[in-house]
Formats: sequence, C-alpha cells, structure tokens
Amino acid sequence: MRVLGVDPGLARTGVAVVEGAPGALRLIHAGCVHTAPGEGTDAQRLVLLFASLEALVAEHRPDLAAVEQLFFASNRTTAMRVSEARGVAMCALARAGLDVAEYTPMQVKEAVAGYGGATKLQVGRMVRSLLRVDSLPGPDDTADACAVAITHHHRARMGRAAARGQVAATAGANRLAEAVARAQLRHAAGG
Amino acid sequence: MRVLGVDPGLARTGVAVVEGAPGALRLIHAGCVHTAPGEGTDAQRLVLLFASLEALVAEHRPDLAAVEQLFFASNRTTAMRVSEARGVAMCALARAGLDVAEYTPMQVKEAVAGYGGATKLQVGRMVRSLLRVDSLPGPDDTADACAVAITHHHRARMGRAAARGQVAATAGANRLAEAVARAQLRHAAGG
Repeated sequence: MRVLGVDPGLARTGVAVVEGAPGALRLIHAGCVHTAPGEGTDAQRLVLLFASLEALVAEHRPDLAAVEQLFFASNRTTAMRVSEARGVAMCALARAGLDVAEYTPMQVKEAVAGYGGATKLQVGRMVRSLLRVDSLPGPDDTADACAVAITHHHRARMGRAAARGQVAATAGANRLAEAVARAQLRHAAGG
Repeated sequence: MRVLGVDPGLARTGVAVVEGAPGALRLIHAGCVHTAPGEGTDAQRLVLLFASLEALVAEHRPDLAAVEQLFFASNRTTAMRVSEARGVAMCALARAGLDVAEYTPMQVKEAVAGYGGATKLQVGRMVRSLLRVDSLPGPDDTADACAVAITHHHRARMGRAAARGQVAATAGANRLAEAVARAQLRHAAGG
C-alpha cells in the first residue's frame, strides 16, 4: 500500500509518500509545497497548492491519502487560513480519485511515538527511525506529513485486524444461527 | 461588468451573478450549491462544490468573483469547516481564471444597507430592491451572495473614481515637478 501523507498550510504543505507495511515502510518521496506571498493573491496561492498536489498524485500514484486535522488551539486567523489550504488539499486529492483519511495531531503522535503528548523532536526521531532514514528534507511540515502517512499504515493494519475479527465473529454468529435453526427443526420433528 | 458573488459553506454555498453598474444592476443568476452529508465524505463534498463552481463560471462567464470573508465570532469547528469550503471556492474561481475579491460581512452590510450593523432582513430587503426583484430563490445564503456581488459593483465604482483621482493627482504632481525643473533651469541659466 502506498500512502500520501499531507500536513496542509497556505505557505507550507508537507507531503510524503510512504509505501509498504508496518515494520517494513519505505519512504518514496518527502517534500514541502511552498507558496510565498509574492506568488500572488491567496486565491492564486491556493491554485498553486492544488496544482502541486495534482502533479504529486500523478507522479507517485498513491493508493490513498491521509491528511492531518487542525489543532484547535492555534489562533483563529491562522486556523482559518490553514483550513482554507486544508480544504483545497482534500478537494485536490479526492478529485484525483483518492480516498482521504483524516487524523488528529494526537492520533498521529500516538501512532508514531506511542503517546499523544510527544514533542516534535520525538515525533521527528521516530519518523526517521520507522522509515530508516538519517534525515528528512525541508521543514517540520515534511516530518509531520511522513508521520501522517505512517499513522495511516499503522491504523489500516489495526483496521484489517479488526475486520478479520469481525468476519470471524460473523461466521460464529452464522454457525450459531444455523445451530439454533437445526435445533428448532429437530424439536419440530421430534414434537 | 459581470460579478459572481459567493457566500461559501460546506452544506450550502450561495452564488449570484450580477451584471451592470450601480443604479442599473441586473440579476443574471441566483442559487445555492447544496452538498448533503449523504453525498459522500467531506473531501467528496468539497469536490462537488469545486465542480459546481467550475460549471457556474463556464455557464455564466463572469468577469470576476467576490467572496465573503468569514465572521470571526462563529464557533471554531464551524469556522474551520466553512474555511475549508471557502478555500475550495477561492481555488476553483481563481483556477477558472477569475480575479477573486474578498469582503468582510461588515463591508457587505455597509455597501448594501448603508451600515455595518444591518440585520439579515434589512440586507435581504435592500438586495431585492437594488436588483429590482420581488423574491430570491433558496436560503439566506443566496441573498448573501447577491449582497457580496453588489458590494463589489459599488466598491469597484469607488475604486475607479479613486483611480481617476489618483491619475489627476499624479498629473498634478508631474506638472509641479516639471515646473520645479523649469524653475531650476531658469535659476541655473540666470545664475
């Protein structure tokens, strides 16, 4: 499975393509989409972000995307700007045919570093360790995008395990229902 | 001039195309883009919004777009959802080649109803009066989109007047600079 992780923002959107399965993850691509204020109006910068993500999907053909949700405690104006970029990112990815999973910062920290209170430094160290790379290009946003992609890999495995559990439970329930039906038939025949 | 006014939201985005000049405005189209939770994930609903705005621009070919800014006092989760839709709207419009103007709710109320504290009812009444229509289709979002488009018409006129003023001022400054240069030449010649 190849996952595109995205940590959205207007000025900087971290992106990372991570392939494989938990325990055997490979970093295919990591980078950061920059849009500077000088590159145009906010609307034009959002178009740049949209086009960059389209190009990234076309180049690396991920199976799905995972996008970080916004931390609520950031200031309101910043939160609205980041949300605008986040909406554009989700739209570009879904429009390119990808399912888009969403994870909160706490889910990402728990999945990557083991607990929701992990620092950026700890998350960065765990990301490099899990991907077996010495360093990551660009700002923190790139490491965060890697962390989001890793989070999806980890949770998808749990999801598959849970799905297998559910299939087993359903099979069990079916066997029980058949057993009950047979018992009723026997009862009717015997009665 | 033909202006597309947009009042963005995930569930409902008001849209209005208003043509003409202040005092002679015509409503070309007014409506509301709905995306229901049942129509898919948030990302898929954002794609629907994006596609609807693309289609609207292709059909009505506005000269530019005006988008309402978010009122800061709304609750934080709502603000982030609306901002995601707003980012997608701005991206779709700019990607379709339109300049995107932005106006605060207060600027819109001032432009349409004369003061920033106008109620929704007052804004709706003024919009219908300015566009000379008895009613508007759909929810308040449609009237708000009309109001944003009207705001741009009114402010663009002020902008043109200001621009003419500036040209006049620049011409005046140039004449002064020429006069000063001539005076210095005369002084040099005379000295």
